[in-house]
Amino acid sequence: MIRFATPAEFNAALRDLPMPDAAARDAAAARQAQLTKPAGSLGRLEDIALFMAGWQGSVCPTVDRIAAVVFAGNHGCAARRVSAFPTEVTAQMVANFHDGGAAINALARACGASLAVVALDLNRPTGDIARGPAMSEADCLAALNAGAASLPDDCQLFLPGEMGIGNTTPAAALCAASFGGNAADWVGKGTGIDAAALVRKRQVVDDALARHRDDCGTAFETLRRLGGREIAAMSGAMLAARHRRIPVLIDGFIACAAMAPMARFAPAITGHCLAAHRSGEGAHGRLLDALGFDPLLALDMRLGEGSGAAVAAQIVRSALAAHGGMATFEEATVAGSP
Amino acid sequence: MIRFATPAEFNAALRDLPMPDAAARDAAAARQAQLTKPAGSLGRLEDIALFMAGWQGSVCPTVDRIAAVVFAGNHGCAARRVSAFPTEVTAQMVANFHDGGAAINALARACGASLAVVALDLNRPTGDIARGPAMSEADCLAALNAGAASLPDDCQLFLPGEMGIGNTTPAAALCAASFGGNAADWVGKGTGIDAAALVRKRQVVDDALARHRDDCGTAFETLRRLGGREIAAMSGAMLAARHRRIPVLIDGFIACAAMAPMARFAPAITGHCLAAHRSGEGAHGRLLDALGFDPLLALDMRLGEGSGAAVAAQIVRSALAAHGGMATFEEATVAGSP
Repeated sequence: MIRFATPAEFNAALRDLPMPDAAARDAAAARQAQLTKPAGSLGRLEDIALFMAGWQGSVCPTVDRIAAVVFAGNHGCAARRVSAFPTEVTAQMVANFHDGGAAINALARACGASLAVVALDLNRPTGDIARGPAMSEADCLAALNAGAASLPDDCQLFLPGEMGIGNTTPAAALCAASFGGNAADWVGKGTGIDAAALVRKRQVVDDALARHRDDCGTAFETLRRLGGREIAAMSGAMLAARHRRIPVLIDGFIACAAMAPMARFAPAITGHCLAAHRSGEGAHGRLLDALGFDPLLALDMRLGEGSGAAVAAQIVRSALAAHGGMATFEEATVAGSP
Repeated sequence: MIRFATPAEFNAALRDLPMPDAAARDAAAARQAQLTKPAGSLGRLEDIALFMAGWQGSVCPTVDRIAAVVFAGNHGCAARRVSAFPTEVTAQMVANFHDGGAAINALARACGASLAVVALDLNRPTGDIARGPAMSEADCLAALNAGAASLPDDCQLFLPGEMGIGNTTPAAALCAASFGGNAADWVGKGTGIDAAALVRKRQVVDDALARHRDDCGTAFETLRRLGGREIAAMSGAMLAARHRRIPVLIDGFIACAAMAPMARFAPAITGHCLAAHRSGEGAHGRLLDALGFDPLLALDMRLGEGSGAAVAAQIVRSALAAHGGMATFEEATVAGSP
């Protein structure tokens, strides 16, 4: 089990990242060249198969065990009415996850993923980032470690998701602190706010940046000051996944924002991740570009919960089915290209 | 069973197209508005659910029975070396489909589709379209009817695919005859041809257009002169699917080209179809635009066989899983947006 005892341990874990198994990846590429299809004709399905081969260390990777985990947290800044929904909805949706009625329940079932829910101190919202840090060091470490501990032992593909009324606000602040710009560059409509709420939301983000930006000298400190519990939990889970060589399908704006402070200080952290989709949240395209991601899907989804990752997991399934299930030219006695 | 006894019957079937069940679609939209998610937040998954509701006539459509059918044919123009592969590969790949070793076998399994193969007179290639019509009236009717007859009785979603060495050449000619332009607008690299083959391929298409364009006054005559058996079979299957209200996932360049002559004379024919993906074949984007399709995926696939449709079927599965499986705000006691 990976555990971060101090902020320094978390920051150090970002500087010592394992890399994929190049030999397994090469062997998978050699197999791919022999399959009964024109070279390259399965496009990104071929890239996915090689990516998975490298991280699983196997010429024919599999995804029999996909794990979706939804992290939930509440945000002090939500009291400033930056969301279209009341904060009680976070806990109500956690109950809905447990009862099996949310989108991620249905979408996880559809792609054959297990689903776990990690609710983080919902009755104790983070601090209002416009006025002070979101979390104490102890709170931020607890969230990072809750994320790290959430990865099932035998997971072959990890789908982190989130629920947290108001969390596109800290997410926008994290993006700005990590990649530059201000509220106008990173704030979008979230679940669907009106113009007045958009003005309030931008103000919160610009106030938070004015207060904290100069103190965001590490990934930990950025997450602690501007993040939230469910966001830090996603960061911890994704970093722990890397150290266990578990590939990750990153969902939407919040999941990418949880990656942003880590990628600022350790750009290689994105290497075990595929971006599931480009969401409908306005700044997600900019964020994907900043992280160097080319998302698999663009279906105008903007729900969170890991919903886009669960849909993209179907694409990974198909990619590995083709890679592992097809015959070679020799096996099928098919003539190759001259 | 739908059967076209004459060319006139085929052309007439294009003028009498059933429409989706508006009441079922409206009921599905009303259900969607009550599901525990922000309105519209599942993006195109929501559109897919409404599309399927309309064609299945059900508030909660399902896809327990997906049918993939691969049509195979050979082309006279292939003797002009317009492909990177020899023509024997068509029959060799049909054997591979039967043995379960091709991409479509693996991808159909992955999305839970049945797979059938319809090989059409492989030992009797069509005529060389640069010199004369591809097919006689009887041959073209036989191909259309083979397609129409291939739809399983209880199919809920149809995935037509194809295999035919050289078939991007007649497909390009069909596009030009249907939507204007010439070889330079519609000819691409197919399975991956070199520059010399590309020159030959363009010449075949321009010669075919010079010879036939003025005689393409109906969908039937366009398909007969410039198509091929597997292409006409796809046309017949897609038209038969419409008359049986079976929704279709259209694969790539060839499948769209099989739709092109029908759409020229009956634009509403595309209504029961979703475009699965934008393929890597150069002119596919232009063809999708001409047909009014916004494809679900863009994974740079360019294999044919129905492979892109089988991957997109996973997206349809996820869309219907969410639509049918989620709780409403009332069921879950979650507060909606004010």
